[in-house]
Amino acid sequence: MKFARFVAKGHDTPVTAIVQGDELHVIEGCMFDQWQRSGEIVPLSEAKLLAPLVPTSIIGIGKNYIAPGEQKPEKLPDIPVLFYKPVSSVIGPGEAIIIPNGLDEVKFESELAVVIGRAARNVSEEEALDYVFGYTVGNDVTAPQLFHPEGHWLVGKSADTFTPLGPVIETELNPDQVVIQATHNGILKQNSPIDLIIVSVRYLISYLSRYMTLQPGDVILTGSPAGAVMMEQGDTIECAIEGIGVLQNHVAK
Amino acid sequence: MKFARFVAKGHDTPVTAIVQGDELHVIEGCMFDQWQRSGEIVPLSEAKLLAPLVPTSIIGIGKNYIAPGEQKPEKLPDIPVLFYKPVSSVIGPGEAIIIPNGLDEVKFESELAVVIGRAARNVSEEEALDYVFGYTVGNDVTAPQLFHPEGHWLVGKSADTFTPLGPVIETELNPDQVVIQATHNGILKQNSPIDLIIVSVRYLISYLSRYMTLQPGDVILTGSPAGAVMMEQGDTIECAIEGIGVLQNHVAK
Repeated sequence: MKFARFVAKGHDTPVTAIVQGDELHVIEGCMFDQWQRSGEIVPLSEAKLLAPLVPTSIIGIGKNYIAPGEQKPEKLPDIPVLFYKPVSSVIGPGEAIIIPNGLDEVKFESELAVVIGRAARNVSEEEALDYVFGYTVGNDVTAPQLFHPEGHWLVGKSADTFTPLGPVIETELNPDQVVIQATHNGILKQNSPIDLIIVSVRYLISYLSRYMTLQPGDVILTGSPAGAVMMEQGDTIECAIEGIGVLQNHVAK
Repeated sequence: MKFARFVAKGHDTPVTAIVQGDELHVIEGCMFDQWQRSGEIVPLSEAKLLAPLVPTSIIGIGKNYIAPGEQKPEKLPDIPVLFYKPVSSVIGPGEAIIIPNGLDEVKFESELAVVIGRAARNVSEEEALDYVFGYTVGNDVTAPQLFHPEGHWLVGKSADTFTPLGPVIETELNPDQVVIQATHNGILKQNSPIDLIIVSVRYLISYLSRYMTLQPGDVILTGSPAGAVMMEQGDTIECAIEGIGVLQNHVAK
């Protein structure tokens, strides 16, 4: 099932809907818990989709894919390279990624984004996916120029517009079979099966849940494959995962 | 004015109140925007205070105080050592700080916590405090054993119970005159005037707002003075700022 979020006529705040063919069937309630169809139906062609959720937290992982042909490390890192992005950085499909003042370019990173659906604490790898609500596409936009030299990435990961998410949350995806792609100005730059991931989705959920309670609405950006490059003003970036859709954004100053 | 939050009889969710003498005057609405007294008054002695807010984001800064007698650096860092803590790590006064499995000790860090009250984007140092709602005491509990060797602090900053906040938000504090203290098992360990801060509250708000829109409810932990040490199971920690109050927690496994 695909969940989308959009601004509907007659509603003060964005609504959530199920995508059914070329229609949006609006729901009432919380998609993670109890919800029902409101009866309102909007043609998909008339709706401007937003990011499919307002995340609770956004957790990212760095250096998490090998390039094709590379060997995976013999063991997983004791402590993965993990970082947060703020909710204020989220934008939806079609919105502009704004290059911060003082910079000329920022990097795209197409990623499988996991949406947590149930509070998860001390869960095993085997049961980790039971806590996943669904999957969307994330673009972990990054300004490495703003990384602290001692490895504190906050500023370079946090600018407004730096976390495009969408177009929908797909609840029935098989995360072991996805291919993560990115097309930059029409040229395919990232195209990687998830087999090349180092810290798996299951391990990452299980690892984080040893220390913290993952919350419904938390989004985990699971890392970006080889091929990400810098983008300039006027560029177009499409991050895509078959089964979820294409997340297109453009770059502005 | 002091704002507190607590669980009141007959309410399904925690309520916010103004502290007036030894009474809690419950308010309705959003403390950052429009609110009014509901008329309900609860004796302070009967209420178990919670963290005074559920933050939107929590931003921390490292290495931000000199020790007494040290010289301040000649210039501010180009990029400060900044990190996030998750909202899931927040606890209130009196709650237990839980040492994560596999560890024997965690560090306390008593800090002035700034609560943002209005969306702040590209604000100058001069106007920065206009965007502050008030101040509370924060304990930036840390497990440096869980820091990634390349400077990614997420795991060591994020465990459940790692961000005690409280006891109240004081809206009329002068942040230039506070003294940040911590008493560990009754022994004064931190006792520093804010003059020893490196990146000031005003600069920090202005700097962050160059890149991101600070949101109402964002909490900025402004760094911890010299003197923080590790705590073990059974310890008691009191973080205190005169004018706000004492944030007491105990340590458990």
